[in-house]
Amino acid sequence: MDLKFGIVAFPSKKLQDLANTYRKRYDSHYAKVTPHITFKEAFEADDVKGISDILSSIAQKYAPLKIHASRVSSFYPTTNVIYFKIEPTEQLAKFHKEIQDSINIGKPKHVFVPHITIAQDLTSSEHDDIFGQLRMIGVDEKDTIDRIHLLYQLEDGSWTTYDTYKLSGAED
Amino acid sequence: MDLKFGIVAFPSKKLQDLANTYRKRYDSHYAKVTPHITFKEAFEADDVKGISDILSSIAQKYAPLKIHASRVSSFYPTTNVIYFKIEPTEQLAKFHKEIQDSINIGKPKHVFVPHITIAQDLTSSEHDDIFGQLRMIGVDEKDTIDRIHLLYQLEDGSWTTYDTYKLSGAED
Repeated sequence: MDLKFGIVAFPSKKLQDLANTYRKRYDSHYAKVTPHITFKEAFEADDVKGISDILSSIAQKYAPLKIHASRVSSFYPTTNVIYFKIEPTEQLAKFHKEIQDSINIGKPKHVFVPHITIAQDLTSSEHDDIFGQLRMIGVDEKDTIDRIHLLYQLEDGSWTTYDTYKLSGAED
Repeated sequence: MDLKFGIVAFPSKKLQDLANTYRKRYDSHYAKVTPHITFKEAFEADDVKGISDILSSIAQKYAPLKIHASRVSSFYPTTNVIYFKIEPTEQLAKFHKEIQDSINIGKPKHVFVPHITIAQDLTSSEHDDIFGQLRMIGVDEKDTIDRIHLLYQLEDGSWTTYDTYKLSGAED
């Protein structure tokens, strides 16, 4: 049976708690998964072991990822998603590309914009109002991502962790 | 900073989906964590690495755990918690005891009754009504648990996976 998988990193508790102060009010997916950075969006697969082996070997090559959540941004008008923007780095781009290229299932839907979603499924006027407020408050948090997780989705839309992969390599 | 941790296993998607059909209506913790078997209840700790090392070495000793969710039961009158009863086995008891003895933080609150919670925080009359219905429907699912997870709790009460430990040993 095909399962639906996703590949994410959970940032520090501090950054997750901060994201949740907004998510609990503004994010329709609040109860389905804890705050995260997506490296590969939902895709269907049956060869879990193959995917898991690929992620193990990628994780063993990469050093922990340095991230900086630097401001509140929005994907409007593409979608009404408001997020903590993670400053793009070569390290993040290379890591993301290696995952996408190695697990060649589905296509990346978007150019990779590293982010933590804090609001979605808003009407346009809600979006404008909330984005105006959150952009003023902003965010400025640095963190180190030392592991990624392979998640699978349950029927109700919630996500469970299948496995964890520690970034234990030297490659920046 | 002390974090609050828990040690759990997530059963198969099939068993989680089944549990969620009840949890979404009857379990106040539905949105905080996906369906699980608890091996160690919430405890505070700062030495995450120490705990993680202990779990790694325990997991390397044990073979995957065979479980059988055999009927719907209740902890009433101790608490109004309704659950899928997991048939006790020597393997489960030994594994649970080794985790409790090795991570000597807090005391086990209860005798170990392996289970998957499907309803909680009910009034007594809700409990009686719902338990009567669910006990009749029952459950009969076998599964194999091949990994456990160390979770930590966020400020809003939800649980994020810290790490995953595969049961890769020979010990039954």
